Amino acid sequence: MTGDKWKRGAADKPSPWKKSITPRQERVPMPAAAGESAPVQAADDGRVVRPVGEMRLYGLNACMAAFEARPNDLRKVYLTESRLERLKPVMAWCVKNRLGYRVVETPDLDKLSGSRHHEGVCFEMRRPAPVMLDALLGDRSDAASLLVWLDGVGNPHNLGALLRSATHFDVTGVIVPATSSLDLSGAAARVAEGGAEFVPIARIDDERDALARLRAAGYTIAASVPSTGESLFDVKLPKRLVLVFGAEGEGMSGALITAADLRLTIPGSGRVESLNIAASAAVFLAEYRRQICAR
Amino acid sequence: MTGDKWKRGAADKPSPWKKSITPRQERVPMPAAAGESAPVQAADDGRVVRPVGEMRLYGLNACMAAFEARPNDLRKVYLTESRLERLKPVMAWCVKNRLGYRVVETPDLDKLSGSRHHEGVCFEMRRPAPVMLDALLGDRSDAASLLVWLDGVGNPHNLGALLRSATHFDVTGVIVPATSSLDLSGAAARVAEGGAEFVPIARIDDERDALARLRAAGYTIAASVPSTGESLFDVKLPKRLVLVFGAEGEGMSGALITAADLRLTIPGSGRVESLNIAASAAVFLAEYRRQICAR
Repeated sequence: MTGDKWKRGAADKPSPWKKSITPRQERVPMPAAAGESAPVQAADDGRVVRPVGEMRLYGLNACMAAFEARPNDLRKVYLTESRLERLKPVMAWCVKNRLGYRVVETPDLDKLSGSRHHEGVCFEMRRPAPVMLDALLGDRSDAASLLVWLDGVGNPHNLGALLRSATHFDVTGVIVPATSSLDLSGAAARVAEGGAEFVPIARIDDERDALARLRAAGYTIAASVPSTGESLFDVKLPKRLVLVFGAEGEGMSGALITAADLRLTIPGSGRVESLNIAASAAVFLAEYRRQICAR
Repeated sequence: MTGDKWKRGAADKPSPWKKSITPRQERVPMPAAAGESAPVQAADDGRVVRPVGEMRLYGLNACMAAFEARPNDLRKVYLTESRLERLKPVMAWCVKNRLGYRVVETPDLDKLSGSRHHEGVCFEMRRPAPVMLDALLGDRSDAASLLVWLDGVGNPHNLGALLRSATHFDVTGVIVPATSSLDLSGAAARVAEGGAEFVPIARIDDERDALARLRAAGYTIAASVPSTGESLFDVKLPKRLVLVFGAEGEGMSGALITAADLRLTIPGSGRVESLNIAASAAVFLAEYRRQICAR
């Protein structure tokens, strides 16, 4: 198998893939970097139009988790020669399903993934199907369940770090307002180290309606606030809990803080304004798990 | 006060500062980016030579915390016009102490700080004096104290995030092997959001000697391991505790894991290999504080 090996299956649509990347074709414009190929756009009514179709994943754990979770969404595989051994099952799947794969050089992968953190592998995959809020709520309103609501968080690295922690602590799902610019990007998935495959993300159009449905399903809404809430360590956490985290800097909307049933703070020295949102979320998630498992 | 305002005090040594940065001098080579001006170097005997002298800090919280903690270490101030109001006390200090400050454009600050995350401000400051391990141990071997030992961690963002959490949770100090490439950089300080000023970092030459001295001072050594340790939530944590965290990827040295008194794990789903080190550290630090405050 060499750098020229280039398998393709039956194409069902026009694709930038046809511009194959070989060293002598480097002047051919590269497709856009992962996560940028389907940018978030604002529609005429101000609603955010979600990217659809495919995305580029990169990073070994992110790619392997996606392949294991939903191999049928795999479209294309780019990898460096050093990854051939590790990705043998993926290669076999590509051959069996007539999917394209290509051994490329590291600089090509840098461009394809839009990052130097690809760890020798980049997959083109269909995006997971959108999840509706109701799908997160479940049938039993007495089962322990933790949801995370991100209000205004826009940093893909923070989303990725949160998804990694959320997977570790068995979070049921993440809720994001439809107006948020936040979406699963290649960067977020890479930082999540595979966690992006395990935690469904639901978008909500109407905040008040979502709060009502969450409460009807037995959830308590708790807002994480930097300094003015009850101590996280003094509160018996409800077993069905929505933890709301705000954006770095601006924090969450005042209306959402007011609407919450609890306002919780991680007590500390006060010498930094707050914890980083990913660190803060990890502490909240861990404390919920600690309390639930101790009962 | 305009973009041309340019105050200087008595210079006591040759300085790149003399090449003042004005739009018409943009072709003058810029000084190296913050954190790169004094790179870590390996001496002939393999020991790492620490950067000395000055460093560039950037980010509003990082700079203001450094100014408040040690104004006498301030050497130069670069800022954008929009920051003049917020930095009035710093300007007054510069005038009084005949220190140079300069209002620059954002692209100049991008280059000076080596980052786009400078938030309109970059300080040239003396590095804090190195801290010896004994200075962290304190006089009372019965007082509650938490130390963090970083084995092989090299990512400045992880160091910065850890220092922010360490400040929030009142960590006494951070221990880093002398052979580590880790050092406080502008990037780490920016991510720490001021936390770098509150947590002393001690370098140790001899691991075994350091372990012996820590134990003599009443500390228990606990290694954070991804999956094979006792559950963090099932252990009564000693009030004098050293938490050892390993590098992402490789983890910590096997010798250090064996040498530790406790091996602790944050229990989880097992669907991601581990938590990110900054998230993991936040959970450990929070749990220590929770237990100590509850006693």
